[in-house]
Amino acid sequence: DIDHIIITTGGSEAILFGFMSCLDGGDEVIIPEPFYANYNGFAVAAGVVVKPITSVIETSFALPPFEDFERAITSKTKAIVICNPNNPTGYLYSRQEMEVLKSIIIKHNLYLFADEAYREFCYEGTHFSAMQLQGVDDHVILMDTISKRYSACGGRIGALVTKNKNVLQTVLKFAQARLSPPSYAQILGEAAVDLPANYFEKTKAEYKLRRDTIVKRLNDIPGVFCPNPGGAFYAIAKLPIDDADIFCQWLLEDFSYNNRTIMLAPATGFYGTPGQGKNEVRLAYVLNAASINFAMDCLEKALEQYPGTTLYNAPNSTSVLEKTS
Amino acid sequence: DIDHIIITTGGSEAILFGFMSCLDGGDEVIIPEPFYANYNGFAVAAGVVVKPITSVIETSFALPPFEDFERAITSKTKAIVICNPNNPTGYLYSRQEMEVLKSIIIKHNLYLFADEAYREFCYEGTHFSAMQLQGVDDHVILMDTISKRYSACGGRIGALVTKNKNVLQTVLKFAQARLSPPSYAQILGEAAVDLPANYFEKTKAEYKLRRDTIVKRLNDIPGVFCPNPGGAFYAIAKLPIDDADIFCQWLLEDFSYNNRTIMLAPATGFYGTPGQGKNEVRLAYVLNAASINFAMDCLEKALEQYPGTTLYNAPNSTSVLEKTS
Repeated sequence: DIDHIIITTGGSEAILFGFMSCLDGGDEVIIPEPFYANYNGFAVAAGVVVKPITSVIETSFALPPFEDFERAITSKTKAIVICNPNNPTGYLYSRQEMEVLKSIIIKHNLYLFADEAYREFCYEGTHFSAMQLQGVDDHVILMDTISKRYSACGGRIGALVTKNKNVLQTVLKFAQARLSPPSYAQILGEAAVDLPANYFEKTKAEYKLRRDTIVKRLNDIPGVFCPNPGGAFYAIAKLPIDDADIFCQWLLEDFSYNNRTIMLAPATGFYGTPGQGKNEVRLAYVLNAASINFAMDCLEKALEQYPGTTLYNAPNSTSVLEKTS
Repeated sequence: DIDHIIITTGGSEAILFGFMSCLDGGDEVIIPEPFYANYNGFAVAAGVVVKPITSVIETSFALPPFEDFERAITSKTKAIVICNPNNPTGYLYSRQEMEVLKSIIIKHNLYLFADEAYREFCYEGTHFSAMQLQGVDDHVILMDTISKRYSACGGRIGALVTKNKNVLQTVLKFAQARLSPPSYAQILGEAAVDLPANYFEKTKAEYKLRRDTIVKRLNDIPGVFCPNPGGAFYAIAKLPIDDADIFCQWLLEDFSYNNRTIMLAPATGFYGTPGQGKNEVRLAYVLNAASINFAMDCLEKALEQYPGTTLYNAPNSTSVLEKTS
């Protein structure tokens, strides 16, 4: 229903307005980590404290168990934030996991902020939106954007969607104070909605090819593990390295293969818990399959040369020693 | 210098980022009233308390005297906010007034937020920018926008300008968290800078004509007083009415003249002090002179018919009694 939507300046502003409208200074929000790092910035702007709970690569970054949420909830907890499909993990929450979240937000009377910017990019099963949860209309705040859906991130057109009228009224006050989202991109957004129905089918098929390519190539590299992401266009891989921040910097400054290198995001920046993600990196598969293949060649060579490798002490180190000798 | 500028999503975001970067929750900012009402919204978002000090129509809304600032300053005061030329009063601060502000911000170690969105629209004398004040580089935060300058308010391209490097670094963090200002309008803004030099001369000449028209017409109406605004495209007029909010609503709902009416902004919304501005309205002279003349015909008739007139008790009521009898 159009009455439940407020257009925002990008999905970013939808997140910020959601936080500022629903939360007071000092309130806590629980976010499964690794999470989109900019949630930290919006939390700071809103005076809100982020409490991370850890999802792990071994379960493909599935929703942490009910008990982990229970342990993290305090009297100051006011909301849970999820991103589905997830940036940075690519994990697509199942309907069952969404129902678990529903039981938690009902039990503890919390808001559920659902960032569904990547909802059109699902490769396994279908997307189950937080808005489809029954009986929690006043709890659910959805954030969306044209940035990913239509590859229009410079447009800065997003939306906050909720059936909670009080929240909408408060969001509207913040919206009125900052005047309007950009007018040209509003026109662009309207036009984008009229794209032919097969636009997403073609886009999804292309991204699925890229995902299949990058995940297979990653798992073929000795010591590397990458779960198969169900959506979005990101993957997190575990690498045989000592420190992802140092490795990513080394790639840019000290490594080249055929005069090129690759840029990866160290996963550490996506965790709220210090020390987490030190041997993980996030990859964005926004290049075509040929470029991804070249990038994976690069990564393979880089891991053979990187001084901080941990592979020689790892169970499968023999294969690499053979390769490099 | 380009290193001192951060592009923002409209002047609105420049104000918000300025507040969030320089001020903590509970800090106080002093703003001469009447002031741009949206400062209230940005102050709420930043957790900042607005302390108004009153400028009066009798002095054309000149800067309140030094002593009024001194009285309003507490240990929590961290900044003064001015809009120059002013929305809603149209007042253009003189160099002398800017130097008074300089002495206050030095004495009390305050930031000076200078919203100069209307700096190209000056009809009397020249604009003296806060950035021209000597020796207060670390105090001055300038906010600007293409919205007024190039009549491009839907573009949402503004700027925060300061020589204070720490402030710039902090603003950049907020800027990075929300990604970017809208890309199409950035291109538009770049093109606008290349407009011919006489663009502003022509624009200013047109606005000066409108200002001269509206101010003369207003002061010709019995019981009405409007100081001559030196800049921007607003004027505040004192009307012979009981309540500006009721009058403005009555104009829209219960009055018409040749099947038209006028929409005015009650000045009450621009004051932070309750009860101020009850017989004042803000007029935006963004119509051409012919339309302004018709609007003034409307206002003249409306003031003759308005049930809440105070004119019959006013010193110059005789003239009106003659007119209406």
